[in-house]
Amino acid sequence: MAYAAARAAIGDSEFDRDTAVTARPGEPGTYDADLSAGWTIIRAVNGGYLLAMVGRALRAALPHPDPISITAHYLTASEPGPAVIRTETVRAGRTMSTGQASLYQRAEDGREVERIRVVAAYGDLGALPDDVRTTAQPPAMPPYEACVSSSDAPEGVANPVVGSTAILDRLDLRLDPATAGWALGAPSGAGDMRGWLGLADGRDHDAMSLLLAVDALPPTAFDLGLAGWVPTLELTVHLRCKPAPGPVRVSLTTRNLAGGLLEEDAQVWDSASRLVAQSRQLARAPRP
Amino acid sequence: MAYAAARAAIGDSEFDRDTAVTARPGEPGTYDADLSAGWTIIRAVNGGYLLAMVGRALRAALPHPDPISITAHYLTASEPGPAVIRTETVRAGRTMSTGQASLYQRAEDGREVERIRVVAAYGDLGALPDDVRTTAQPPAMPPYEACVSSSDAPEGVANPVVGSTAILDRLDLRLDPATAGWALGAPSGAGDMRGWLGLADGRDHDAMSLLLAVDALPPTAFDLGLAGWVPTLELTVHLRCKPAPGPVRVSLTTRNLAGGLLEEDAQVWDSASRLVAQSRQLARAPRP
Repeated sequence: MAYAAARAAIGDSEFDRDTAVTARPGEPGTYDADLSAGWTIIRAVNGGYLLAMVGRALRAALPHPDPISITAHYLTASEPGPAVIRTETVRAGRTMSTGQASLYQRAEDGREVERIRVVAAYGDLGALPDDVRTTAQPPAMPPYEACVSSSDAPEGVANPVVGSTAILDRLDLRLDPATAGWALGAPSGAGDMRGWLGLADGRDHDAMSLLLAVDALPPTAFDLGLAGWVPTLELTVHLRCKPAPGPVRVSLTTRNLAGGLLEEDAQVWDSASRLVAQSRQLARAPRP
Repeated sequence: MAYAAARAAIGDSEFDRDTAVTARPGEPGTYDADLSAGWTIIRAVNGGYLLAMVGRALRAALPHPDPISITAHYLTASEPGPAVIRTETVRAGRTMSTGQASLYQRAEDGREVERIRVVAAYGDLGALPDDVRTTAQPPAMPPYEACVSSSDAPEGVANPVVGSTAILDRLDLRLDPATAGWALGAPSGAGDMRGWLGLADGRDHDAMSLLLAVDALPPTAFDLGLAGWVPTLELTVHLRCKPAPGPVRVSLTTRNLAGGLLEEDAQVWDSASRLVAQSRQLARAPRP
């Protein structure tokens, strides 16, 4: 299958609708939102999706459009359903502004529970100077057509791990076969995960969907031979460039699993081979 | 010169005295502090020193002692002199707690100005499980004795760049000669900086001094042939292990200078060759 048979536009796509926020009248900086069940892994709302939603609220609140550096602390598990995002403008400068936001949901007893707290510096990716001195190399991986999607997996093999996951229906994810061995019971042990990532409806990437992209692949723990939940404690994303159209290449690496924690580093490269995002998260390792 | 001729103890050293915070009576979570002129680069207070001070306030405020993941946004330039740190306990869990803190100083007109905003997850490094699966390798660099300190630099060569910098008197910093060429006008161009780092009074490292360590070497920009100021926008540090006694090896790398910004990744390895800290900062690149 070629990429992007049907194309949705940035601003008018599944991802845009599902991350939309609505300013609450009379409460400046407060936004209502609805966490979609369409971006869940098993029952948990994907952390990158959540970050994109909070990223949209900060875009609405701050004078600059793009998160240049954004950090999220994941405090409690989010659930599909209504949420409110409260933002604060910390500092508004000429080329960069700083904001903070928290997303809350109501517990059964009606109390507001904070799900995620975010601090970010926003700027304008389109206004950055043109200098590029990148010595990092794009990940060595096969072309899109030679990578594997979850629908390529043998019946009953990959499906128990990722098949019941709603988010996969919304992504166009093709894993490098070298990092997909875990789905066949043969993880490489290296702690790598690589793939091509688009959105299923063909929407191109922008700053908001890159926040999703860094956390949308299966966890590197699978490639280490560890199965189970890998909850993110903290995730920091740096956006470095506006992404060119087409799917991006995402490369995840884990080099230090210790003390029950692991780091997951992501690089995201666009179709023009520009390094458009770098991220690192600290997560709890599954018990071996 | 051998390392640590005179030894100061953790808790009773220059670094501990200069990062001390005092709880303000009657204002829970508020701490007074004094930014020392001893940890400045030219006139600017070092960002790692500032982070360590805020880290101490959060240690006092939270139920857990060690920053496991800590992120700072640098908002305005700090100056030596009095400061106040206001903390908030965001969430207190069994093994981990989350806190936030801001450090303020007074402007000439008496207004409080926020210098740095920090969000962090604290835990207990001593209570983490013993599993270690580190595939990262310690940096290849010469032994401590074969590395160069700023006092080894020829008169009038390195001194204009780093010699007037008070922080160097408080550090025992020995650069890998391969990354010290910039001091002689011959940067490698790779964007690397490596060195052994202790404290000048021989105090061993702990969680707090590791927050300093990730930001205490000369900037990688020097190795790229760029001179000038490299202000940090955001710095995130993950502490992964209690450091063993003795100086640590710090390795900094920059792989993507683009759009006027660069990332600086740090790895800190202790004398037992454990990866004790990982960090990344996003900074403004000096104009070429």
